[in-house]
Amino acid sequence: MHKGYFLTVEGGEGAGKSSVISRAGEYLAALGHKVTVSREPGGIEIAEQIRSVILDKQNTKMDGRTEALLYAAARRQHLVEKIIPSLEEGHVLICDRFIDSSLAYQGHARGLGIQEVMAINSFAIDHVLPDLTIYLDVLPEVGLSRIHAHGDREINRLDLESMAFHEKVREGYLLIREMFPDRIVTIDANQGQDDVFEQVKQALDRFLARNNG
Amino acid sequence: MHKGYFLTVEGGEGAGKSSVISRAGEYLAALGHKVTVSREPGGIEIAEQIRSVILDKQNTKMDGRTEALLYAAARRQHLVEKIIPSLEEGHVLICDRFIDSSLAYQGHARGLGIQEVMAINSFAIDHVLPDLTIYLDVLPEVGLSRIHAHGDREINRLDLESMAFHEKVREGYLLIREMFPDRIVTIDANQGQDDVFEQVKQALDRFLARNNG
Repeated sequence: MHKGYFLTVEGGEGAGKSSVISRAGEYLAALGHKVTVSREPGGIEIAEQIRSVILDKQNTKMDGRTEALLYAAARRQHLVEKIIPSLEEGHVLICDRFIDSSLAYQGHARGLGIQEVMAINSFAIDHVLPDLTIYLDVLPEVGLSRIHAHGDREINRLDLESMAFHEKVREGYLLIREMFPDRIVTIDANQGQDDVFEQVKQALDRFLARNNG
Repeated sequence: MHKGYFLTVEGGEGAGKSSVISRAGEYLAALGHKVTVSREPGGIEIAEQIRSVILDKQNTKMDGRTEALLYAAARRQHLVEKIIPSLEEGHVLICDRFIDSSLAYQGHARGLGIQEVMAINSFAIDHVLPDLTIYLDVLPEVGLSRIHAHGDREINRLDLESMAFHEKVREGYLLIREMFPDRIVTIDANQGQDDVFEQVKQALDRFLARNNG
């Protein structure tokens, strides 16, 4: 049986990941692929438990390295219980954020170090990297203005952090794509949804052509 | 102010860690040191929460790498909230198990790889290694017979695993002490408690002499 493809979608706040993931899923399904969309912790009980430790507002003393190790632990369990089984069934698994989010947010923007965060995530993923990563590159001011314009989701803790932090996140992503030029495709996400998805579609077509559909 | 010393005690099941830790604590206190004894998760709320995810008997699907990342996360938080503050107050902090337990149990005996488990623990400890580690080297058959002879504690999951596993744990410790010859002192722990402690006392005396008391 044909082993599936592992795709991830990455980007800062307001980059438009949800829209791209939903359209990419429909596009790939229309081409005849079995598509599964997920995001960590993805309903995996152990990963949900870990996530609730991370998000517990009582845990104000949580160290940045503890948090990064917990994200890596939740990632591992989601990978083992959900991503790998889907790929083995031949699905295209589209994951909303994966290792690059940890590298950009914890590694670069929060200053733990991209290489350091890479070390624990390498342990977590044990060589299972995405086959293709779509990085939606948006200017922080564009991304944040989208979030504030939408009334459709609550502004979260990350939204409220300074613009400087979001600049750092973007800088992190730009460094990471240099590390993985074959895996990460950059899409200019400052445009409207249709124009953004047109670029994504072309990237998917090129990927599928390279991998024989 | 004099920065404290960070001591750890390591060994397989039935090696006699508790007795050594209690006597070492009394000995060092009698010499005028402020002594704090701890073990992970050490009453640190975040580390306790992480530990309860690890020990939850419902979590039968827990992957070995997830578990190792969770141990590293709990270690980090215990280090930051308890060990480092104690050292900064000039205490001798004696910790019952630390990084070497993860290397021996998860890294070697469970087969994740000593170097791999070292990578995530290096991230967790961020260069804070023990100043001295007392490794109580006991033959698995001696250690396990002690545990079964004592009625004083319940036989736990690890006790019930095969002798082959305990041999692997010991093999792991013997490999690790080669990696850290300056830090790890090996004590023959197959003897009676008094003879074992006499060797420990000599190791502590040598350590203190080297570090000017």
